[in-house]
Amino acid sequence: MGIDVQKRNIGLNFNENGSADIRVWAPLAKQVSVSIIASGITLEMFNEDYGYWCLQTDKIKPFEEYNFKIEQLTGGEVIERADPASLFQADGPHGPSNAFDLRNFLWTDQQWEGIELKDFIIYELHTGTFTPQGDFDAVEKKLDHLVALGITAIEIMPVAQFPGSRNWGYDGVFPFAVQNSYGGPAALQHLVNTCHAKGLAVILDVVYNHIGPEGNCFADFGRYFTDKYHTPWGQAINFDDAGSDAVRDFYIENALMWFRDFHIDALRLDAVHAIKDLSPVHILAEIKTYTEKLSMFTGKTYTLIVELDLNDDRFIRAQKTHGYGMDAQWIDEFHHALRVCAGQEQEGYYADFNRVEDLAKSYRDAYVYDGQYSPHREKKFGIPVEDTQGHKFVVFSQNHDQVGNRMLGERGATLVSFEMLKVMAAAVFCSPFLPLIFMGEEWAESNPFQFFINHSDQKLIEAVREGRKKEFSAFHHKGEVPNPQDESTFKRSKLDWQKLDQPLHQGMLAYYMTLIALRKQNEVLSNLDRKNVNAKAYPVKNCLLLKRWKGNQNIIVLFNFSKQQQNLSIDVELQGWTVLLDSSSIIWHGLKEDTNLISVNGEISLFPESILILFKKDV
Amino acid sequence: MGIDVQKRNIGLNFNENGSADIRVWAPLAKQVSVSIIASGITLEMFNEDYGYWCLQTDKIKPFEEYNFKIEQLTGGEVIERADPASLFQADGPHGPSNAFDLRNFLWTDQQWEGIELKDFIIYELHTGTFTPQGDFDAVEKKLDHLVALGITAIEIMPVAQFPGSRNWGYDGVFPFAVQNSYGGPAALQHLVNTCHAKGLAVILDVVYNHIGPEGNCFADFGRYFTDKYHTPWGQAINFDDAGSDAVRDFYIENALMWFRDFHIDALRLDAVHAIKDLSPVHILAEIKTYTEKLSMFTGKTYTLIVELDLNDDRFIRAQKTHGYGMDAQWIDEFHHALRVCAGQEQEGYYADFNRVEDLAKSYRDAYVYDGQYSPHREKKFGIPVEDTQGHKFVVFSQNHDQVGNRMLGERGATLVSFEMLKVMAAAVFCSPFLPLIFMGEEWAESNPFQFFINHSDQKLIEAVREGRKKEFSAFHHKGEVPNPQDESTFKRSKLDWQKLDQPLHQGMLAYYMTLIALRKQNEVLSNLDRKNVNAKAYPVKNCLLLKRWKGNQNIIVLFNFSKQQQNLSIDVELQGWTVLLDSSSIIWHGLKEDTNLISVNGEISLFPESILILFKKDV
Repeated sequence: MGIDVQKRNIGLNFNENGSADIRVWAPLAKQVSVSIIASGITLEMFNEDYGYWCLQTDKIKPFEEYNFKIEQLTGGEVIERADPASLFQADGPHGPSNAFDLRNFLWTDQQWEGIELKDFIIYELHTGTFTPQGDFDAVEKKLDHLVALGITAIEIMPVAQFPGSRNWGYDGVFPFAVQNSYGGPAALQHLVNTCHAKGLAVILDVVYNHIGPEGNCFADFGRYFTDKYHTPWGQAINFDDAGSDAVRDFYIENALMWFRDFHIDALRLDAVHAIKDLSPVHILAEIKTYTEKLSMFTGKTYTLIVELDLNDDRFIRAQKTHGYGMDAQWIDEFHHALRVCAGQEQEGYYADFNRVEDLAKSYRDAYVYDGQYSPHREKKFGIPVEDTQGHKFVVFSQNHDQVGNRMLGERGATLVSFEMLKVMAAAVFCSPFLPLIFMGEEWAESNPFQFFINHSDQKLIEAVREGRKKEFSAFHHKGEVPNPQDESTFKRSKLDWQKLDQPLHQGMLAYYMTLIALRKQNEVLSNLDRKNVNAKAYPVKNCLLLKRWKGNQNIIVLFNFSKQQQNLSIDVELQGWTVLLDSSSIIWHGLKEDTNLISVNGEISLFPESILILFKKDV
Repeated sequence: MGIDVQKRNIGLNFNENGSADIRVWAPLAKQVSVSIIASGITLEMFNEDYGYWCLQTDKIKPFEEYNFKIEQLTGGEVIERADPASLFQADGPHGPSNAFDLRNFLWTDQQWEGIELKDFIIYELHTGTFTPQGDFDAVEKKLDHLVALGITAIEIMPVAQFPGSRNWGYDGVFPFAVQNSYGGPAALQHLVNTCHAKGLAVILDVVYNHIGPEGNCFADFGRYFTDKYHTPWGQAINFDDAGSDAVRDFYIENALMWFRDFHIDALRLDAVHAIKDLSPVHILAEIKTYTEKLSMFTGKTYTLIVELDLNDDRFIRAQKTHGYGMDAQWIDEFHHALRVCAGQEQEGYYADFNRVEDLAKSYRDAYVYDGQYSPHREKKFGIPVEDTQGHKFVVFSQNHDQVGNRMLGERGATLVSFEMLKVMAAAVFCSPFLPLIFMGEEWAESNPFQFFINHSDQKLIEAVREGRKKEFSAFHHKGEVPNPQDESTFKRSKLDWQKLDQPLHQGMLAYYMTLIALRKQNEVLSNLDRKNVNAKAYPVKNCLLLKRWKGNQNIIVLFNFSKQQQNLSIDVELQGWTVLLDSSSIIWHGLKEDTNLISVNGEISLFPESILILFKKDV
């Protein structure tokens, strides 16, 4: 049917004159009809090319509910199903679709010019646990906190309709429908509009690698899945097998919708290594092409960021060099190396990471593994990155996965010392990469972020619980795996904003604000050219020296991950350097009374678990 | 362990001093030993890094038999297995390995300079059915016939050891061992040496996408297979999962061995679309890299040709543009379009091909599908080719698959008229691509080439037979599917060289010789730059006009695929053209008494089922 970047061409969409265009892909059907719930009317649709069914009608009004009735070619009963491209499932995945009118919202962000990718300071939040209320309205009320912190982009964990009201979002089953319990699509539009008014970009996490297990009726419509590949989460989405054109278009339409109709600035595409596509044009490259077409139409910039566990720069290379053209990727390896420096035991996937040496490698080369043998993966892994732009990479010391995929979902604040938290934060903000923090990190939130679900299928609930238990067999943990289905698991995972009344938490917040402000103001720290970066490891002392420069300006960051005071000899003349930030200073609740450089016999003395940021301008 | 292009570094290899280096990958083993059959000695091997076991010993002499004894980490009985990298299985896949000495053969081809890829005229042969004897010695005796025909490269269907003595070769289970019933490795070395003496290059068909079902003990050694992907022939080879380094090295060593130790000029890699590898460096690209390294070492040129069903030029693009660097690929689509022009019913995969229009497309663009919707594949298929070098593509009107994968294995000679055979041959030899013919085609052999096996596993025999029956459900055929296991199926598939005594067959042979000679001698026909090609279809008349040029020389080839005489108006001034070849001339047993151009009212008149090759030099 082809994609028109100017408007959604699938599902139910209202025209200027108030009539609705309805279109659905159902190549297995003998007949498809639209059933309008309120009026009880059923309208037969017309068969188009390539298995699409369509109808233009004025019999359905905005916000009325509808379903599709499908009579399959193979016979059997007529089945009634919600619209795979539904915009709103007011009663959840098991209810009918709502004829939401995307054009209803009055946008006031016409002046919004966006944030350049290199200036992204990302705050990842989960709508349900970010606030006590757990919806988009409540997120809006906290935006001022984020603005004050210095955040430039919020990243919202997936909002596609999932079963129940408690879920990380990766079990979404209606990729176009915004979660009812969060406030649905209207509230998301409102949130984005408000973000833009406050100068915040919005990144939306979207899941194109699988469809959630409960309420998933896609197979009744067409070949959305393929058995050619296996994924950890069940059937692989069909991006390259027979019937894949419609599936590809479905996801391209989805990406375009968020940008065009919700004014989302960037998508974070979940686990794209699990998107298996051996077509000559990878689905990500095709999404990029259409995103650029939309950009030509709207004049706005749209950004595509991928979560990627492959150390393969074909994802982030430009299409002219036969890459997929993604703007940036996450690098978990930076996190893993950093956590091991900070005392994380080298078990499970952490076994691959060798403390400061690997952190230094990541500062220099982004990928830690770029061809070496990985013991955990049991094979050589990765290739070197061609691109030297640091804004191609997103780094973090915590994120929803790294916190929540621990058995008990412990945040950094309950795993390492207060001082070490500051060291880890500095490691992220002083990097030549895009920093991301996970909600609550900025005040050393100690509540856990655990894995929670709210399914209604009892077998599935048990399977998820068993899967969770199995997952932690490689790690040595004390205690029981929390029950994901229990509401208490969800409640326990909410942020506790009242901690901000306490001086210690206020101190951490001030520290984060200072780090962010420093990164923004300092030309060296905001220069993300990786050619202007070097790093040296001191493995015995568990220390690291990070050097960055731009023109005649220089930054040195000294990290002491050990619990001892360490004296480091560095190959830099010590005279003339200014201390920009000292994490062990009493102003951040540390033990050091002033922020002067302590030099002992020509070596720099570093407090236990501390960092120092030094600055010098050459003359 | 790393690959040394100068020598084989896996399996059993003799050193200069007569001792043997033995190395095997068995990461699941607690202990691996070598059992020397004749002397009854068992020698414990040493555990190296990455699960390799090795031993240097003078206890085994060239051509003695041996096995590995494996005690697994998981316990259980000690199992005895042949060497996965065995060079010779004198008693077939179920017997022990033979300590073949690769260096034993006295090569006399030091002066061999190879054939440039663009000059390849390829003759595909199956060793078992090419001659009555069915072995390499017998192939050698027929080389003079091929030289006289004008062939420059023979392509030998796979010779890796398979079960029994009758098999196309795609059920090979010892990728390094040369089929015992063909004469084993010594006879292959001898054949290649003789080919080079006669000026023939040798292409060897190798299978890197699966391992045959009978006698396959690879899983006892290590993770040679992965469940991440599905293939039509069982488990996918593990090129990117845990443990894949050793598997990749195994196949790289294999490619290098054929070039280095058997003096093979080119490999034809079977069905590489079924090699699933999502590593940053595809296994084909890595094979290319090592092949180039070997080339630096020996000073010889080695060519990699792939069978590919993907219309994705990343396989044939250079590595500097992030391609896999393969030198050429097969294009079945040219064949399919040509066969449909020649009257093949549009059923099964032929349904995608629209006679002369698609043949003209293939002449112009190589790929027929370069982004269009393919009804048979039920999706958009392919991308345009960037490269304009015609020698990137191998074309044919018949090959082992296109003949043998018909239910009855009918060759062209029993499906179309004698005149149409000549038209199809001209379509291939006048193309700007590399021509390939299938053994016997040159004299219009009418014996079938059917699918045959000689397994010993009864269940497998039945499964193959059932699979064969199922495969033909999409085609309308009369008669029974021949039983692949029956020896008569094999015998019936042998060439009948006695037909060459008959004038009709002699005539076809002369026609092929003339076509090949013309292609070699004429500068336009041997110019494979696709920028100098155009083609126009006459759909109603089922005719086609092919134009080629180089400098001031021009060739026109006119094809009439219809059974009627056709008059064509062409956009070329008719004066000054010479007829180079007329397929309907009586000299090729046609009906036309002379070879002059017949012009009727300014239109060219074409005999039914005929071609005309015209030449003109501009002044």
